[in-house]
Amino acid sequence: MDVRVITISRQFGSGGRTVGRKLAEALGFKFYDSELVKKISDETGFNEKFIEDKGEHASYTSKLASIFNGRQSYGTMNGQSTADYLWGIENKIIKDLAEEGGCVIVGRCSDYILRERNDVLDIYIHAAPEFRAARIVKNYGEPSEGIDKAMKVKDKKRATYYSYYTERNFGDADNYDIALDTGVLGVDNAVRLVLDAIEALKQE
Amino acid sequence: MDVRVITISRQFGSGGRTVGRKLAEALGFKFYDSELVKKISDETGFNEKFIEDKGEHASYTSKLASIFNGRQSYGTMNGQSTADYLWGIENKIIKDLAEEGGCVIVGRCSDYILRERNDVLDIYIHAAPEFRAARIVKNYGEPSEGIDKAMKVKDKKRATYYSYYTERNFGDADNYDIALDTGVLGVDNAVRLVLDAIEALKQE
Repeated sequence: MDVRVITISRQFGSGGRTVGRKLAEALGFKFYDSELVKKISDETGFNEKFIEDKGEHASYTSKLASIFNGRQSYGTMNGQSTADYLWGIENKIIKDLAEEGGCVIVGRCSDYILRERNDVLDIYIHAAPEFRAARIVKNYGEPSEGIDKAMKVKDKKRATYYSYYTERNFGDADNYDIALDTGVLGVDNAVRLVLDAIEALKQE
Repeated sequence: MDVRVITISRQFGSGGRTVGRKLAEALGFKFYDSELVKKISDETGFNEKFIEDKGEHASYTSKLASIFNGRQSYGTMNGQSTADYLWGIENKIIKDLAEEGGCVIVGRCSDYILRERNDVLDIYIHAAPEFRAARIVKNYGEPSEGIDKAMKVKDKKRATYYSYYTERNFGDADNYDIALDTGVLGVDNAVRLVLDAIEALKQE
């Protein structure tokens, strides 16, 4: 198996984005994180903040709202809810990127969207809350007060968005080829293990 | 971190037991799988088949039964249900083995039982149903007819037992340091990746 695309799913603060960036550097792959949001913005006309907030984080009140209102919670676009409309565009962009190959894609259910391809390696990066909280405070300059709650809310929103569109559970190991705890292994070891796996798969 | 104990959780047919055995061989560690059942048998007087059937697989009807009957579904031992009695013995044996160190322990919620230790590497091995079914038919000589159902029942029992005693979800990536899909990576690559991780952790 020749790995042409890597998807990274991650818990907030786990260093998953850094793992993805370092993998892209090591492999000479393109790295799609904020770049992906920019692409969706260009395609839809929504600004990047809206896509960040409302795209990946279809808020979990929206799940309930959608049951009662038929997914109308963000207004409609071409007869779809805005969230569904964004989802459709995201799907198309991510599938196009995978077709080109040579890329690492962070988040946005890319593991699910690309599930039919056989040149994709799906990675999940997670860590214990204490490790993640310390990283967030250090790297993003967030105040340590309230960090646990902020982390829980972010994780919950991400998980709700994921399960809403994929009917899978976020963080279920079965969804990923490799899942690693960066709190135990460290970010750089996680990168090395994934590179080792890609190398081993090349031999087969 | 010096890894002294490895726990292997696995989906039925994924090759997790083989990964564990090969890790033990490579590291010169003891391998506890059926050996563990024998130890529990020696300690409790129950025979190995009973422990295999009723121990790890507290059947999922028993979960419901326990709600109505106060966990009396297998009769009682010293005022506890038999399942709870076995659980207590298992806990003690697994903790004692970990204290000695130098071992690989397969299944029996050992990741949860040893969660307080910081010399344990928790591994989860899984694979797509088609890969597992083919392995089971080939390696255990099971008839291929009905294999999907048998696999589902076994997975479900294992998951129910796990969540009953641990209040965690079986197969949730957050429970494990490393989770690997042997259907994608292959059993030998999975072994090599875990050995690489152990080597990397030694340097820290």
